[in-house]
Amino acid sequence: MSNKEIKRVAIIGTGAVGGYYGAKLAASGVELHFLARSDADVIKKEGLKVESLKEENIHLTDVNVYSSASEMPLCDLALITLKTTANQALNKILSEVTDENTILCSLQNGYGLEQALVNQFPNNPVIGGLCFICSQKIQPGVIQHQDFGSIRFADHNAGIEILEQVSSLFSESEIPTQTAESLEQARWEKLVWNIPFNGLSVILDATTKEMLDDDKARALIKTIMLEVISAANGHDCYIATDFADKLLSLTDDMSPYFPSMKGDFDQCRPMELVSIYEAPILAAKEMGIEMPQTIMLSQLLSYMDHG
Amino acid sequence: MSNKEIKRVAIIGTGAVGGYYGAKLAASGVELHFLARSDADVIKKEGLKVESLKEENIHLTDVNVYSSASEMPLCDLALITLKTTANQALNKILSEVTDENTILCSLQNGYGLEQALVNQFPNNPVIGGLCFICSQKIQPGVIQHQDFGSIRFADHNAGIEILEQVSSLFSESEIPTQTAESLEQARWEKLVWNIPFNGLSVILDATTKEMLDDDKARALIKTIMLEVISAANGHDCYIATDFADKLLSLTDDMSPYFPSMKGDFDQCRPMELVSIYEAPILAAKEMGIEMPQTIMLSQLLSYMDHG
Repeated sequence: MSNKEIKRVAIIGTGAVGGYYGAKLAASGVELHFLARSDADVIKKEGLKVESLKEENIHLTDVNVYSSASEMPLCDLALITLKTTANQALNKILSEVTDENTILCSLQNGYGLEQALVNQFPNNPVIGGLCFICSQKIQPGVIQHQDFGSIRFADHNAGIEILEQVSSLFSESEIPTQTAESLEQARWEKLVWNIPFNGLSVILDATTKEMLDDDKARALIKTIMLEVISAANGHDCYIATDFADKLLSLTDDMSPYFPSMKGDFDQCRPMELVSIYEAPILAAKEMGIEMPQTIMLSQLLSYMDHG
Repeated sequence: MSNKEIKRVAIIGTGAVGGYYGAKLAASGVELHFLARSDADVIKKEGLKVESLKEENIHLTDVNVYSSASEMPLCDLALITLKTTANQALNKILSEVTDENTILCSLQNGYGLEQALVNQFPNNPVIGGLCFICSQKIQPGVIQHQDFGSIRFADHNAGIEILEQVSSLFSESEIPTQTAESLEQARWEKLVWNIPFNGLSVILDATTKEMLDDDKARALIKTIMLEVISAANGHDCYIATDFADKLLSLTDDMSPYFPSMKGDFDQCRPMELVSIYEAPILAAKEMGIEMPQTIMLSQLLSYMDHG
């Protein structure tokens, strides 16, 4: 795996995450190629827009946008920003835009995503990025950015130089970045937030604030967080139990927010149940750790899922 | 506590349960007095109707119906058929229609109901009845009976003779009855059904059949049943684990049904969360038994509750 310059970047999925980060990178001069499926025609005609409540708006014109990966050029870095529910299409897409030198970086939510990439593309450098962002696609080609936007990058098998190279590409485009020592740990830490808030917002039809302001719902969120922390600790990813309180008070300070799964459910899209629930439940089970409340959440959501 | 003849029966709450059983008893010649609150005027004018999908309809006219307990005569047996969410009014009501000889019989759903009666009326004979019935009040004074109707009576502190006396009163009115040796055990057995089906029907907006036909929801129902069984066993109420499978297949054979809590929720009435969830959770906790999934159900329902 050589450390060559990243000239050409593919965005695999131009939604709330891919649209936002791709627009930021392109706006600062990086050569971007967007896979957008159904939105490609609109983006070709009207450009890609980021309407931000916190930052300057972006309106990219003359966007390299494609409805099929087979039309895309070979890229140096592929940012995987599809919903994980579309991952059955991922291997074919990546085989069109990558060679063995292409860095694969999953910005998706959930667990086990990088290992799945390595299983399919064993010779490529793979890293992961955990996005702390509140954004949503409000119409084709238009991303609303509500708040935040930092990314924690961590290495899977690419080595620290490639990790830093990707991280620098983002930070030079005014995207706050960090690097984490352990990708496994970073993914579990993100699950401590994602597992309770995503599912409960769907089941209770509630924003983060509505849930946190209710004593019983808040207690439930905390219990589930502690369950995820104990699963993480079973994977040798030590997370202190006061991390739950930190996340609760951090979320108290956020504007009321519907997590992405709630948006998927309301729009009748399938929910990311495999990557956010089933994969970590299975990983915990293999370590002999039970997650009864996470399992229950997963079962309730599975019943409700439109997918 | 003397064993005297039961001549006069009070129905405390003329809803889906009290309306049905009261009408059956009255139709077979027992002197009944119905507390009906808001429906009293309609019942006085138009009578009390049971429209049954399985049995002959009943139309009682000249009903002894009252909107206030203070107008009711002293009774030999008080059948408590209020929703448990109205139990804060129960002590005052009972003090109007009972003396120390009046048999108190709770036909309510949940746990700890008879002990609460004894705490308030320590000298009265108290028994319990577990109703296996699908019925609902479809308009003031009109009860729709969908299926079943048997009652398992069990003694709390009244003695076996009084228990048999009450049971006979019902069976002579063509209501199938059984007596159970242990009220505690009978109440836990009913909770094995009530805890999963009531709450999940609200959260999933689903009938018994819709849930049972879904693999994940069925698995969840069974896990929760096993959790309730293990709590019961911790109370020295031995319930075999295959009781869960028996209840599942018994429910498979029922017509699709919305449990009573779903009706309460849809009608914006408070749900019976204290008696069906919080009381058994607390009782289990006092024995050192955790009920994580039942607790989660209770917390979700508490957030959703209109009460």
